[in-house]
Amino acid sequence: MQVLKAPAEVQAWARQQAREGKRIGLVPTMGYLHEGHLSLLRKARSLCDSLVMTLFVNPSQFGPGEDLDRYPRDEDGDLSKAMACGVDLVFMPAAADMYPKGFQTKVSLGALTEPMCGASRPGHFDGVATVVSKLFLITRPDLAVFGQKDFQQLAVIRRLVSDLNFGIEIIAGPIVREEDGVAMSSRNVYLSPDARKQARCLVRGLRAAEQRLAEGTRDASTLLAAARAVIGAAPLAKLDYLELRDAETLESVRTVSKPAVLAVAAKFGHTRLIDNLVLQA
Amino acid sequence: MQVLKAPAEVQAWARQQAREGKRIGLVPTMGYLHEGHLSLLRKARSLCDSLVMTLFVNPSQFGPGEDLDRYPRDEDGDLSKAMACGVDLVFMPAAADMYPKGFQTKVSLGALTEPMCGASRPGHFDGVATVVSKLFLITRPDLAVFGQKDFQQLAVIRRLVSDLNFGIEIIAGPIVREEDGVAMSSRNVYLSPDARKQARCLVRGLRAAEQRLAEGTRDASTLLAAARAVIGAAPLAKLDYLELRDAETLESVRTVSKPAVLAVAAKFGHTRLIDNLVLQA
Repeated sequence: MQVLKAPAEVQAWARQQAREGKRIGLVPTMGYLHEGHLSLLRKARSLCDSLVMTLFVNPSQFGPGEDLDRYPRDEDGDLSKAMACGVDLVFMPAAADMYPKGFQTKVSLGALTEPMCGASRPGHFDGVATVVSKLFLITRPDLAVFGQKDFQQLAVIRRLVSDLNFGIEIIAGPIVREEDGVAMSSRNVYLSPDARKQARCLVRGLRAAEQRLAEGTRDASTLLAAARAVIGAAPLAKLDYLELRDAETLESVRTVSKPAVLAVAAKFGHTRLIDNLVLQA
Repeated sequence: MQVLKAPAEVQAWARQQAREGKRIGLVPTMGYLHEGHLSLLRKARSLCDSLVMTLFVNPSQFGPGEDLDRYPRDEDGDLSKAMACGVDLVFMPAAADMYPKGFQTKVSLGALTEPMCGASRPGHFDGVATVVSKLFLITRPDLAVFGQKDFQQLAVIRRLVSDLNFGIEIIAGPIVREEDGVAMSSRNVYLSPDARKQARCLVRGLRAAEQRLAEGTRDASTLLAAARAVIGAAPLAKLDYLELRDAETLESVRTVSKPAVLAVAAKFGHTRLIDNLVLQA
């Protein structure tokens, strides 16, 4: 497994792979890998010839007061996990090489980035769209795998790829959960024991709504109320948003008549967690 | 020479060229080709294996009230000129295929796009950066040639390529002028005979300043005054801007101590012309 820091070296490697007719697969990460990331790496490994993982905690997608400085890191652990998943190349750039002096280009999207995490985290998706564009152009993948836990990010990236003609196949990896149902997240390590226990309210709330849908309730406000009742019963959970939206356009839905995403964000102390379920009509 | 309209077909062609180890050269145009464009095509032809010309009058770089609807077109003439210059592939998309329903991605730059044409034409460089990003991703060139007449555009594209890691060599083609010195432009056809004659004031003004520099004057305001005096003597010329700026950063300069661009934009009736000279320190 190669580990490279210089964008130009990675780009040269990628060009060489293309000349050799090799299909490049990409899994972008911010490191501190958990089983969720590893599932994406394994999926990508099965679909490509040359597997690239990027490891970059991108400053531009964190807002002021967010957790950039204390985002968890474990470089050595990440590299050995990547190796075990069959990664061929890890691209691990320095921030100064990604955003050198004079950097001034921004990639931004419209309606898809306005609600949900876009509303809670102004500028977040500009940072995501810009860095992902850079990572795509540096690593030149044929396909890239993103986790469905960041559901809005996935929708944004699909749109970005289509709008700018990246010609990259975007593949979603399902949410991987702990035994008690809590979605895996690098941020879970920050939860106090009590908060970790109460974090279960998110997936339980989502599943309560899903259960109501299975029983025949298609009305969004009823489904949302079912989820909110469960989450509201956890005193440490401070709800950021709970929304039911079209799974493709992320427009609000009043009635579930096609695939919709039930998405939640909540803070437990300083730690913000997200989760979602796709509800089938 | 192939002529293709579908982005996906062009992208497939470009991938095949890369697999064959061929170096792709790109010249993006809005058509209505004149000798300036042809000089760019010939330059690109000499530097690449497979030459692509794009022909697309990009709506998103025209503002409200600008001349999108009456921008001159001559598709047949353009194709025969392209063929004569050895173009291998013309990409001539429909606007609906470049900006399909739901399109919402914008590529924008900062300080470089604020002065000069950026100030006169709000949103213009967002449109340019976005469409050029798309054209780059569709045609996947190793190098691209842009005319130096659009000096600010060239600076913006160099920065864009560097910032987003396009990995494309950007080459400037010098301004090609009519016999009387007027810079070639597709828009020159709109000038009345009187305006066409007076349009010479732009290059004459620029050269008057250049002459003053050659005589030892490095002070920006003196150089600008020399140019302004010439342009001001042409009654049909309505000056939009006349500026002396650092040739790389486009920051204002007070004294010419490194390469600087003396750039002008003026309207003659409804027709807006631009021109520039790079002054060597």
